[in-house]
Amino acid sequence: MASLRVLGIDPGLTRCGVGVVDVAPDRSAVLVHVGVVRSAPDAPAAQRLAAIAAGIREVLQTHRPDVVAVERVFAQQNRNTVMGTAQASGVALLLAAEHGIPAETHTPTEVKAAITGYGQADKRQVQTMVARILRLDELPKPADAADALALALCHAWRGAGPQSAQSGALTPAQRAWRDAERLTRR
Amino acid sequence: MASLRVLGIDPGLTRCGVGVVDVAPDRSAVLVHVGVVRSAPDAPAAQRLAAIAAGIREVLQTHRPDVVAVERVFAQQNRNTVMGTAQASGVALLLAAEHGIPAETHTPTEVKAAITGYGQADKRQVQTMVARILRLDELPKPADAADALALALCHAWRGAGPQSAQSGALTPAQRAWRDAERLTRR
Repeated sequence: MASLRVLGIDPGLTRCGVGVVDVAPDRSAVLVHVGVVRSAPDAPAAQRLAAIAAGIREVLQTHRPDVVAVERVFAQQNRNTVMGTAQASGVALLLAAEHGIPAETHTPTEVKAAITGYGQADKRQVQTMVARILRLDELPKPADAADALALALCHAWRGAGPQSAQSGALTPAQRAWRDAERLTRR
Repeated sequence: MASLRVLGIDPGLTRCGVGVVDVAPDRSAVLVHVGVVRSAPDAPAAQRLAAIAAGIREVLQTHRPDVVAVERVFAQQNRNTVMGTAQASGVALLLAAEHGIPAETHTPTEVKAAITGYGQADKRQVQTMVARILRLDELPKPADAADALALALCHAWRGAGPQSAQSGALTPAQRAWRDAERLTRR
């Protein structure tokens, strides 16, 4: 079975994290691309969204992912930037659809649980686990880039389904998560 | 001086109002197009945004507006739909930029004040004034379509600036607004 190429997008108007990973059926993962698409804070909103769209489109066309995972935005988040973040997420979902690539959203809690085994993990824990999973020498920076990679990994692992999670192929985080799930079922 | 063609967009994921008006230098306005772009509520978000984008793109290409006015979305609005509304507004702004058409946002209060002379006007008052300004036999329906026309008129009138508002050319709403402004300056 071929590996799955996932583009994770951490939407934002000032900084939009993009991360591409190839995830094998045994859940091992390889970094393909990571970066941050930026727009000028003093530009009009339409121009900023066009800059974000151009950056995402370039990643889609260069790396041709099988699926796109976008972080889900909630109204409760930081008031000042949440509308721009939601607009950027809309643009990301639109571009996926227009490239014929399936797109899904995941909540930050889902991502943290998938990557660290703990839904309330902090950014540093997520970055550390992403670096470990992808065997990177350094933590992926900035945080938006790490979040995009975490989203992509989360999507691939969740999509694989629990039945394909052979014990031997699990990462430490996946084992922790599985064990936590078993505990809650008791 | 030629008239200004404005596309007003009342963003939404289920119903997105679109209205095109031609506004003359004397501020008189003519209806060019009004409609509602819809998406299936049970479709995935990316497909819904693609449907909204296709509808907006068609209006842009058929009617070639000089400028696009989009309603500004606030985090405080209805929690259940505000994220979808923000995503749709992001798509609308992106499409304007990608067609090389300037785009601006206006708040609901600005629109109501421009159309009815009163920032807290209800939907019915706005619809009534829009019908009167455009000399329509019926109120534009649904409300999303009327709001899109109101946005377009608001943009054209505000863009024209107060110096071009010759008294004789003012509509009743504009006179009311001007008078209200004068009162607040006393």
